Amino acid sequence: MTEWICARCISRLRSSAHRTFSTSRAYRERGSVASLLARNAEADHVTVHGWVRRVRRQKKVAFAAIGDGSSLLPVQAVLKPDDAAQLSTGAAVSLFGSWRASHGAKQSHELQAREVQVLGDNDAEHNPIQPKYQTPEYLRTLPHLRPRIPTNTLLLRLRSQVIASTTSFFNRAGFIQCHTPIITSSDCEGAGEVFTVSSNHHPKPPTETPIEHFFRTPKYLTVSAQLHLEALSQAVDKVWTLSPTFRAEKSDTPRHLSEFYMLEAEQSFTQNLSDVMTTVENLLNAISTDLHSSKLAEELLKPHQDHPSSNPDHPLTTPADTLTDRWTGLASSNWPRIPYTTAITHLQTAASHNPSLFATPPTHPTGLQAEHERYLAATLGRNRHPIFITDYPAHQKPFYMSPSSQDTVSSFDLLVPDLCELAGGSLREHRAAELLQAMQAKGVEGKDLEWYQDLRRYGSVPHGGFGLGFDRLLCYLSGVGNVRDVVAFPRWYGRAEC
Amino acid sequence: MTEWICARCISRLRSSAHRTFSTSRAYRERGSVASLLARNAEADHVTVHGWVRRVRRQKKVAFAAIGDGSSLLPVQAVLKPDDAAQLSTGAAVSLFGSWRASHGAKQSHELQAREVQVLGDNDAEHNPIQPKYQTPEYLRTLPHLRPRIPTNTLLLRLRSQVIASTTSFFNRAGFIQCHTPIITSSDCEGAGEVFTVSSNHHPKPPTETPIEHFFRTPKYLTVSAQLHLEALSQAVDKVWTLSPTFRAEKSDTPRHLSEFYMLEAEQSFTQNLSDVMTTVENLLNAISTDLHSSKLAEELLKPHQDHPSSNPDHPLTTPADTLTDRWTGLASSNWPRIPYTTAITHLQTAASHNPSLFATPPTHPTGLQAEHERYLAATLGRNRHPIFITDYPAHQKPFYMSPSSQDTVSSFDLLVPDLCELAGGSLREHRAAELLQAMQAKGVEGKDLEWYQDLRRYGSVPHGGFGLGFDRLLCYLSGVGNVRDVVAFPRWYGRAEC
Repeated sequence: MTEWICARCISRLRSSAHRTFSTSRAYRERGSVASLLARNAEADHVTVHGWVRRVRRQKKVAFAAIGDGSSLLPVQAVLKPDDAAQLSTGAAVSLFGSWRASHGAKQSHELQAREVQVLGDNDAEHNPIQPKYQTPEYLRTLPHLRPRIPTNTLLLRLRSQVIASTTSFFNRAGFIQCHTPIITSSDCEGAGEVFTVSSNHHPKPPTETPIEHFFRTPKYLTVSAQLHLEALSQAVDKVWTLSPTFRAEKSDTPRHLSEFYMLEAEQSFTQNLSDVMTTVENLLNAISTDLHSSKLAEELLKPHQDHPSSNPDHPLTTPADTLTDRWTGLASSNWPRIPYTTAITHLQTAASHNPSLFATPPTHPTGLQAEHERYLAATLGRNRHPIFITDYPAHQKPFYMSPSSQDTVSSFDLLVPDLCELAGGSLREHRAAELLQAMQAKGVEGKDLEWYQDLRRYGSVPHGGFGLGFDRLLCYLSGVGNVRDVVAFPRWYGRAEC
Repeated sequence: MTEWICARCISRLRSSAHRTFSTSRAYRERGSVASLLARNAEADHVTVHGWVRRVRRQKKVAFAAIGDGSSLLPVQAVLKPDDAAQLSTGAAVSLFGSWRASHGAKQSHELQAREVQVLGDNDAEHNPIQPKYQTPEYLRTLPHLRPRIPTNTLLLRLRSQVIASTTSFFNRAGFIQCHTPIITSSDCEGAGEVFTVSSNHHPKPPTETPIEHFFRTPKYLTVSAQLHLEALSQAVDKVWTLSPTFRAEKSDTPRHLSEFYMLEAEQSFTQNLSDVMTTVENLLNAISTDLHSSKLAEELLKPHQDHPSSNPDHPLTTPADTLTDRWTGLASSNWPRIPYTTAITHLQTAASHNPSLFATPPTHPTGLQAEHERYLAATLGRNRHPIFITDYPAHQKPFYMSPSSQDTVSSFDLLVPDLCELAGGSLREHRAAELLQAMQAKGVEGKDLEWYQDLRRYGSVPHGGFGLGFDRLLCYLSGVGNVRDVVAFPRWYGRAEC
């Protein structure tokens, strides 16, 4: 096939550089705003790219604050009034000049700009996001523009860093990262409200015609990766995934979304729930320790006061000492592991001392209400340390959990102060007959889960795992009160912008 | 709220250890099969957990091969015949004994087992996956059991490692990892066949009633994260995601799935397509270099001959030198960047020398067929080095690409030998008027993409990005010919098991 072509031709073709593009001066080697701000020495030739946060014009000189999302603090640029004339809030710009010690008190250095170039259109006047306080509710209608608000860039960086920490932790701990399917046949919990997936190949059929399914049978968006992870755990032992999950619930709370990320892990060869709790503890230890020692920590603890989102109503309003306590709690070890029955007794004792403590009296069969979980987390977790509540009554939990007694299952919920439930896990029923029995009792047996029963028929092994609400974790770490504000494009009942 | 509770009570509750679980001897501290195999020194007290690959019984002694997915090679265990009697292929076991230098030729050490415990049920006889050659087509009907085949555990580990390499590369390069939405309003390409998402809250309405949508308007499964990534790139500059994407195409090929992972990245402040190509090149450099220096490399190059999947028809049959060439090519630099027009001329010259070379004659307007791409990759990419074809005719490409001339766009496809297209990217049209014009020309303007036009109205910036088929990359790196065999739970037209 290649015989006829001469070596010179090939060489000429290979070297044909990509000539249609020119590199303008504005695109010279450059660093981020964060790296420039970290630079203590003066420099003569500095290029910075970013978006204008503010312009202040005086007669002989102008000032502009430039951010690029890498830092809450902007670079302060000193400009010629003529150069500043073309600038407006929000415009993308390229600045070239000298990095000089500043005479102002606010920053140690400033960029004395010799060249200023506006890189694209910017209709500052009609921009729906204005440099002033705007309510979180309003901003949620504009998820394509909202990320540009400095605190939102911080939340994007936080997510990225926590993903990196998580990846690194599991890698060290010998867990294999897996991609579990989004389109599935089954509803893991046997109770969740699911989204249905269909192809629009087939226009609505006449009433009498059976629907032709793209995948032969009806399919849904996954509500949990757990069952599939269990199958993979029986191949490589320890597995994890960070995957989108879905609930078609009509809930309208600061804690629930229709589409959210779940961090789930399974491990084989364990018949001890403590092993699973220890994995959760070690994971959160690693995440919070990494965060605490990162640049993000400082930014989260001292949000910059000099931008629109510094309004007290802004999501990032959790006091710094509360945040520090949370991180320290997550970084601590030996979190209390308290059986459900003990927790109920504790609540009942508290209620007997103070009858108005709870709106709903705590009883064993009715389960823990949010107010009870809050109280448990507040009184049993020292200094915002998390607590595990274990061994819940079987009737409150899904079919796949392994029993720990006649009426309880080897399960845990991880409770943290303020937020309450952050994660939940269990040993899984690994005995075929007992699993079928539990499925029948919960009414979820059937062809769709035949494959899941197979896992108990062939090479079954005692195992356990957990799921952790990743977006909730980001709320907890950042102090953002509403999960809709830590997700870039949140989806909930009635709302899915963009 | 906490006043009434005495310190002793709290202390007692906190220390209430989790007593319902006992740790049996079989669950002592242990290492993986891979870590045990790496152990050159003898040891008296070794525990290993895994699944039985084979048992061989002799009169006075028995042998078992034990794997746990951490290694293609199993641990060889020497057992008392009585202990071996209870073992069957596939059973989960715990072995305890001594790690001793082996007299056999096959392995340097063996486990002389003193205690053997079977951990769960195993109906070896009826297991649909038997220890013999079974066709890939058959195995795809059993995705919940298939991962246990040793080569499939290798593919699970490969995916995990490539994700880790990718995460680490982008982290170093200052890219922020984002979670883009799965449920979206728009169809990025303006042409893809999409899956529709609906909630089953609402049973089929009578014909005359309008459907009540869960999200008010119809929603689809995303076909690409690109448009959303562009919005985030305008906040933090460089962004990336590894996210599930969906196509409701009725294709039945070894290259297409209905659900697949796309690795996508966008970067702002560039008007040079070379910047984007360089990012792709650096990323693949990093991935292949990491792979080449890892334990996986050896396992992929010398697949263990001693297990069922060693059959020549098994997916992992690409010769070792081909794989090495691929990795070396991906790790090389300065990949040829050849304009589309030059590529067509090259093909036409080749066809004029050998009229039977192509089934379809290469012409400028009709575009590159698979056979043309294969020829370009084979002749222009030295030793399986990848090549970029750039500046495609605008009419062949989607609306969002930036022009590079009257008729061409600043785009590229990355071609690799054997597999052909692995990635594609472009500069994005960042001018509002020109974008609208292109949308109108392609017939995709409308309310659903109003938000995307906003990105050009407010703080617009020259930018570009790319998308890379992650599952295809894994095929290319591992030599697996069919994408259905590198995805744990593959979905395609008519098929979505489990």
